[in-house]
Amino acid sequence: MNKIQISDWLKKLQDTICNDLEKADDGSKFEEEIWERKEGGGGRSRIFKDGKYIEKGGVLFSAVDGVAPEFLFTEKEHSNNVSSKYFFATGLSIVIHPKNPMTPIIHMNIRYFEMDGGARWLGGGIDLTPHYIVKEDAVFFHQALKNVCDKHHPKYYNQFKKWADDYFFIPHRNETRGIGGVFFDRLNENEEMSFNQNLAFWKELGETFSPTYLTLIQKTKNKTYTELNKQWQLLRRGRYVEFNLIYDKGTKFGLETNGRVESILMSLPKLASWEYNFKTKPNSDEAKTTSLLKKEINWI
Amino acid sequence: MNKIQISDWLKKLQDTICNDLEKADDGSKFEEEIWERKEGGGGRSRIFKDGKYIEKGGVLFSAVDGVAPEFLFTEKEHSNNVSSKYFFATGLSIVIHPKNPMTPIIHMNIRYFEMDGGARWLGGGIDLTPHYIVKEDAVFFHQALKNVCDKHHPKYYNQFKKWADDYFFIPHRNETRGIGGVFFDRLNENEEMSFNQNLAFWKELGETFSPTYLTLIQKTKNKTYTELNKQWQLLRRGRYVEFNLIYDKGTKFGLETNGRVESILMSLPKLASWEYNFKTKPNSDEAKTTSLLKKEINWI
Repeated sequence: MNKIQISDWLKKLQDTICNDLEKADDGSKFEEEIWERKEGGGGRSRIFKDGKYIEKGGVLFSAVDGVAPEFLFTEKEHSNNVSSKYFFATGLSIVIHPKNPMTPIIHMNIRYFEMDGGARWLGGGIDLTPHYIVKEDAVFFHQALKNVCDKHHPKYYNQFKKWADDYFFIPHRNETRGIGGVFFDRLNENEEMSFNQNLAFWKELGETFSPTYLTLIQKTKNKTYTELNKQWQLLRRGRYVEFNLIYDKGTKFGLETNGRVESILMSLPKLASWEYNFKTKPNSDEAKTTSLLKKEINWI
Repeated sequence: MNKIQISDWLKKLQDTICNDLEKADDGSKFEEEIWERKEGGGGRSRIFKDGKYIEKGGVLFSAVDGVAPEFLFTEKEHSNNVSSKYFFATGLSIVIHPKNPMTPIIHMNIRYFEMDGGARWLGGGIDLTPHYIVKEDAVFFHQALKNVCDKHHPKYYNQFKKWADDYFFIPHRNETRGIGGVFFDRLNENEEMSFNQNLAFWKELGETFSPTYLTLIQKTKNKTYTELNKQWQLLRRGRYVEFNLIYDKGTKFGLETNGRVESILMSLPKLASWEYNFKTKPNSDEAKTTSLLKKEINWI
């Protein structure tokens, strides 16, 4: 597949995922916005507002090109591969903030990048942020990701699961954002895998989003919840905001390079809360969840 | 005044301001928390939760000492003054998030820093973030600050007002956080002013907080407001969160140096909101406020 084919494939995946989410939300409709980038390329944003089960969410496709940002030429690891100043990047980014505190927040980003000189790579990540961690669901989510990984490379799940643990981490809180998932970057070809083999893995990961998340929505969307559950959801969203604004590299890079602010900050929830020194009650569900916000939990 | 006297003075100012705010909030009470810092010193936090007019706020005193952070020794400008590795820092930090969208958010921080070798300096800042900018109130606020500045140095207001414009700015939104105020750092002695003269200015600035903000609370606390006003308040608070988590140097430094997270993030509102691509209506009060979120507005 060349860059146009990859980009077209991502657009189709956007269509499929949006259709799936609309059905899951009892027929709510995404709002679409087409935008252009002055320096080259553009995007197709699909935004959920006040759905039945999805409070706020976005499924954003973009394909941009132009003069490559300076940083590419200073990073040692790629200085050899980069022979031109022009780049092409295409990707699909998803964040869904559900209404029901029992339904987890989900995030996925898959992206493809190439330089005129021939260098190209794949990146991606998918992670789950339950407001309340339910072990059975955490196992289900990680198993779905492991199934995709194992089909393509025996080491990918362990390797990319660790990468997600390290990436989706909030140092000042000493806690992970959620239960992690997988994360990888700069995947091209190596001794064991061709670029096309990695591309097949990457595509299948993208396709696993809908069935996996829809199962979790279906299971939780009608669960009853209390005022405390809702309060806790807003506090957890506050932590999500802290991660995205302080640590997320995509957000940081986007804002620093004059990216499209509305797309970059689409990931933020409709409502979030902060309380001074909020303490969970011992042995409460909130305390149990907090105790599981750690790296290196072997969910499977 | 030596460091102990300055620190005691700040504690008294904390008492005064807390009493004033409690009265302004019809007798609500701050919660107090005394904390110690493992490496030396500690603090006295006073926190407002769900008051009548103040939704969330903090008036935090601290006085800490210990081995100075590395950064002090790499900054050229002070490498000559720093002859020891021990520091002492004391300060008072205030952020008030009111309930009523017609009452502005206020922030003040005044701080004193010294090194064992004799180097010492004052820093501070006070800025106002109205959800709706009312010109008359903006003039009143800036005039109060100018009065203090003018009493001590004819150039301070212009100089420190510009510093605040530059500091309280959100680059990715291309807007200021609010209507600014004054900001300064590393103030010690120079050809025109002795340290004690600057200290007198700094103290008076601290003392102007209560009468100034109380006037604004008094004027606005019973104003009626609509759903849209409340929605807009939450969106403006979202921008406040963006500034504090992405750009505020105190927050960044605090989180990176393993500071006390609850104190550092006290500044975040109880509730904040983000909406994809929110647009103000032409000529609305929201649009007027947005048009005034600019640097270099000469309010007086």
